[in-house]
Amino acid sequence: MPPIPPHLMTLADLSVPQIRNLLNHAFHQKNISAAWLSPSNQESKSRMSMRMPSQSLFSKSVALLFSKRSTRTRVAAETSAVLLGGRALFLGSEDIQLGVNESVRDSARVIGGMCQGIFARVGEHSEIEELAKYSPVPVINALSSLWHPTQILADLLTLHEHAHLFDKNIKALPDASVVPTRRKPTTLPELPNLTIAYVGDSANVLHDMLVTYPRLGHHLRVASPDKYRAPKEVWDRVVELGCDKKISWSADPKEAVHGADVVVTDTWISMGQEAEKEQRLKDFKGYQVTEQLCKDGGAKDNWVFMHCLPRKKDEVDDEVFYGPRSIVFPEADNRKWTIMALFDKFIGRWDNGAERD
Amino acid sequence: MPPIPPHLMTLADLSVPQIRNLLNHAFHQKNISAAWLSPSNQESKSRMSMRMPSQSLFSKSVALLFSKRSTRTRVAAETSAVLLGGRALFLGSEDIQLGVNESVRDSARVIGGMCQGIFARVGEHSEIEELAKYSPVPVINALSSLWHPTQILADLLTLHEHAHLFDKNIKALPDASVVPTRRKPTTLPELPNLTIAYVGDSANVLHDMLVTYPRLGHHLRVASPDKYRAPKEVWDRVVELGCDKKISWSADPKEAVHGADVVVTDTWISMGQEAEKEQRLKDFKGYQVTEQLCKDGGAKDNWVFMHCLPRKKDEVDDEVFYGPRSIVFPEADNRKWTIMALFDKFIGRWDNGAERD
Amino acid sequence: MPPIPPHLMTLADLSVPQIRNLLNHAFHQKNISAAWLSPSNQESKSRMSMRMPSQSLFSKSVALLFSKRSTRTRVAAETSAVLLGGRALFLGSEDIQLGVNESVRDSARVIGGMCQGIFARVGEHSEIEELAKYSPVPVINALSSLWHPTQILADLLTLHEHAHLFDKNIKALPDASVVPTRRKPTTLPELPNLTIAYVGDSANVLHDMLVTYPRLGHHLRVASPDKYRAPKEVWDRVVELGCDKKISWSADPKEAVHGADVVVTDTWISMGQEAEKEQRLKDFKGYQVTEQLCKDGGAKDNWVFMHCLPRKKDEVDDEVFYGPRSIVFPEADNRKWTIMALFDKFIGRWDNGAERD
Repeated sequence: MPPIPPHLMTLADLSVPQIRNLLNHAFHQKNISAAWLSPSNQESKSRMSMRMPSQSLFSKSVALLFSKRSTRTRVAAETSAVLLGGRALFLGSEDIQLGVNESVRDSARVIGGMCQGIFARVGEHSEIEELAKYSPVPVINALSSLWHPTQILADLLTLHEHAHLFDKNIKALPDASVVPTRRKPTTLPELPNLTIAYVGDSANVLHDMLVTYPRLGHHLRVASPDKYRAPKEVWDRVVELGCDKKISWSADPKEAVHGADVVVTDTWISMGQEAEKEQRLKDFKGYQVTEQLCKDGGAKDNWVFMHCLPRKKDEVDDEVFYGPRSIVFPEADNRKWTIMALFDKFIGRWDNGAERD
Repeated sequence: MPPIPPHLMTLADLSVPQIRNLLNHAFHQKNISAAWLSPSNQESKSRMSMRMPSQSLFSKSVALLFSKRSTRTRVAAETSAVLLGGRALFLGSEDIQLGVNESVRDSARVIGGMCQGIFARVGEHSEIEELAKYSPVPVINALSSLWHPTQILADLLTLHEHAHLFDKNIKALPDASVVPTRRKPTTLPELPNLTIAYVGDSANVLHDMLVTYPRLGHHLRVASPDKYRAPKEVWDRVVELGCDKKISWSADPKEAVHGADVVVTDTWISMGQEAEKEQRLKDFKGYQVTEQLCKDGGAKDNWVFMHCLPRKKDEVDDEVFYGPRSIVFPEADNRKWTIMALFDKFIGRWDNGAERD
Repeated sequence: MPPIPPHLMTLADLSVPQIRNLLNHAFHQKNISAAWLSPSNQESKSRMSMRMPSQSLFSKSVALLFSKRSTRTRVAAETSAVLLGGRALFLGSEDIQLGVNESVRDSARVIGGMCQGIFARVGEHSEIEELAKYSPVPVINALSSLWHPTQILADLLTLHEHAHLFDKNIKALPDASVVPTRRKPTTLPELPNLTIAYVGDSANVLHDMLVTYPRLGHHLRVASPDKYRAPKEVWDRVVELGCDKKISWSADPKEAVHGADVVVTDTWISMGQEAEKEQRLKDFKGYQVTEQLCKDGGAKDNWVFMHCLPRKKDEVDDEVFYGPRSIVFPEADNRKWTIMALFDKFIGRWDNGAERD
C-alpha cells in the first residue's frame, strides 16, 4: 500500500497547532524571501551569506487545475513555486475540463503521476474530494463551492502581522496599509482575542472562517440574509468542532459589526451568479461596509477592514476600501506566503504537521 | 552552412540501436530523478550526495506548439523540462495559430531563434515537416495526423519495465499496475519477443507501432475495419523497413488477440472526429476489449492491457481498464520519462545517437 | 514613502546614454548566454569556467499582462526570464481582463505585490500609464496604442551588429541575414549616421523611432498617407526632444527611400483593424517595399530591410523579405536580448542607468 498523501480540503481538517505551525512557517519563509526578491543583493558574493527559502520543490511541478479564473490564487501559487525552486503548471478550463474528456479519477492518477502536487480550483466541492481520493500526490483546495482554506490562512497571517493595530492603548488610528518596517518582528506577533464581523453572503470564504476563528479564540459575528446561510454540511463541521458557541448570526449588518475589531466582506455576486445579480443586489441592500455603518453599529474605534478581492463597490465604498483602516493589499500579498507554506509543507515534504499535535 | 538539427518525426526515422539508446536513457534518468521528486531528501546535506538528472536544458526553453489540447503530452513535457533545468513554454491555439497570422516558415525561424527546441502537436503531418524544414533548432513530433513517436517510446519503456509479467513460469497473474519495488533493477530489463495485438482504429498510435515493434522482434496483430487501414505513405515506410513480415491484419478482433501477450487499443473517436461518431460506433461494434473477447480469441493467460488515454468505455470496459492486467497508468507515467530522454538527447545535446549505429 | 520603481513607457523617457547603456548590456548578455544555449558544453566541468548571464531575476517572477496576443514579445520575455534565473508568468485576456472584473488600480497593486515586475501589452496607452501609477514594481511597456519601445531597442541592436553592412568600401552586397561569426566583436560595433526610411502606417513602431533615431544621429524619412500621421501627443514628444529637425515626411514612398541605408516597414492592418482592411489596402497602394521601389526612389545600393513581424505580403514582397538585404530574423532574435537587458536592469536591479547620464 502506498502512503496516503496529506491533502487539504478545508481548515476544519487541521488542528489548531497545525494551523499555527503553517502561519509561523509562512511568516518565516516570507522574511527569508524578502532579501532574495529585493532589487539589491544581486551579486553572488552578497548572496552567499543569504539564507535560502526552502527548496523543497526543487525540480518538482505542482499542477494548478483551475476550472475557474483566479488571478490572485494563480499568481500566488506560481510565484510561490518559483521561490521554492519548482514550477507551477497552470491548467485552465481551456486546457483540461475535469470529467469531460476523461474521468476525474483517471485525470487525478495521470496528473498525480507526473506532478508532485495538485492545487485545484473546482466547481462542486465533490470534485476536489474525488481528485483527492484518486491522486497519488497531495491535493490542496484552491477554492471550491464549499470551502476556501487558503484565503483564511492569508487572513490570519495578515491579522497577526497587524496585531499592533489592536493594541488598546493606541489613541489615533495608524495607517493599516503600512506594515511597520522599523522594528520588524522576527517571530509572528501574537494576536489578542478579537471580534470579527463578516457582513455578506455565506459562501466559501465565510465557511472556513466559521470552522477556524472560534477555535483560535475569536468571536465571529455574521450578518447574512436568512436565505444565504451556510448549508448543513458546513454547519455540521462547525458544531463538530465546537465553533458554534462563538458565532452569532443576524440579518442586520449593524448588529454584526457591534464591538468589531475587524470587518470582513466579500463580493455578493461570485462568478457564475451573474443571473441572480438583480435579486442579490436587493437582498443585500444596506450591507455595504461604510464608515457610517460601522459607526451606527458600534464597531470599535480602530476597526480594520478586510476583503479577499476582487472588490466591487456594492459591498464596500472607496472611503473604507482605500482608507487607512484597510489591510486588503497586505492581505492579498499574504495569499502568496501562506500558499508557499502549504506547498512547502504539504507538497514538498508531505508534512502536514500532524505529528506536532 | 549551419549544422542541421536532429529532428524526430516518427520512430521510422530511428534505427533499432537509436531506439534502445533512448529507452535506456529514459530508464536511467527516471531512476536518478526519483530521489529528487521524493518528499524526503529535502535537506541540502542529503542532496549533496544525490546524483543530478541531466541538466542539459539549463537556462534553455522548449516551445510547445500545440494546435490541439493534450494534457498528458503537455504535462509530461513541462515537468520533464523542469527536471532538466529548463523550461517548456506552452503555446496553444489561442496563443499561436500556425500559418494563420504568419507563415509556418516564419514562425519556425522566429521561435527557433529564441527557443532551443520545438515540441509540436499539429494537425496535418505536413505542418510539422514544414516546421522542421525551417527551424534552426530540433523539432520533435508530439502528435501529428500520421505519427505519434513519443507514445510508442513510452509503451516500450513500460513493456520493458514489466518484462517480469511475460515470464512463462508465472502461474498466477501478478498485479500489473504495481511496479515491483523490492528488487528494482538498475538496468532496463530485456524483453522477450512478444505478440502484440492492436484492436481499433488505424491511427497515428498504431502507425508508429507498425514501423517499430517488428524491428524489435515483436509480432503485431492488428484488428481494424477494412476502411480504417493505414494510409499508403505509412505502409510504404512499413515495407521499406521490412516490418510487414511480422504484421498480420484482420477485421476480426478475436483473430487479432490470438496468442497475444499484450492487447492495445485507443479511442475510436479522436478530437475533431465527433461528427463521425455514430458511424464509427457502428463500424467498431464488437471491438471493445473485455476479458470475454480475449478469452474467446485465445489471448495468452497473462495478457496485459495498454491504452494511450484518455479512455472511453466504448473501447475497453472497466473490468479490464482498472483490473490487474492494466498497465495504463505506468504507461502514462512513462510519457514523462521518454519525453525527458528525447529532450535531453535531441534538444539539450543535439545527439540523436546516430553515431552509435 | 516607498521608492518609485523605474518604469519604461517609451524610449522618449530615456536619455541617449541610457539607451546606449541598454544596448551594450544586451549585446554583452547575448554573448555570455550563447555558450549556455549551445548544445555543447553540457558537462558540469566545462560549465564551471563559463561566465553566467546575470541572475538578477533568481527566484523572481515577472507578470506578462497581455491583453493582445503576441508570439514574439511573449516568447522573448519568457525565454529571457529563464536565462536570468527567474520566471515570466503569462496572463492573457482569458486569464485577466484589465479593468473588467477589477479596477486597473487594484490589479496593479495586487500583481505588483506578488511579482517583481510587470511587462504589459495593453490596448489604450492610458491603461499602461494607470498600471505604472499604482504598481509597486517596475512596469515595462510591451506595446501600447502609442509606443513600442522594446521593438526599437531590438532594431538598434540589430543595426549595430550589422554595422559592417554600411561600410562605404563594400562593393558587393553581403548576405545581411548572416551575422559574421569568424571575427565576432566583443564590444558593440559603432554605427555611422544612417538614413532610415520608414514606409507605412504611422503607428507605435514608428512613434518610438521618431523620438529615438534623430537623437542618435540618424535621419528619418517617413512615407505615410496624410491621414495616417502621428497623433499630437506623440509629435509633442518629438519636438520636445528636438527630433523633428532630422525627420522628413512625405506621402510618396519613393521620396522616402531616397538615399536610404535602411528601409523599414510594418503591417498596415494591425490586430483589431480588420474592419478597415479594404480602405487601408487602398490608402497604402504603392507602399509595398520592393527592389524596384527602392531603385526608383534612389535608395543606397546596399540598403538593408527591417520588419518587426509578423509580415504580410502586402507591405513587402518575397524577394526583399527573404533576400540577402533582409535582417528581419536577426532583428526578431534581438527582441529577446534587448528585453533581457531591460528585465535585468529595470526589474532585477531597479537600475535604469539614470545616474550614468
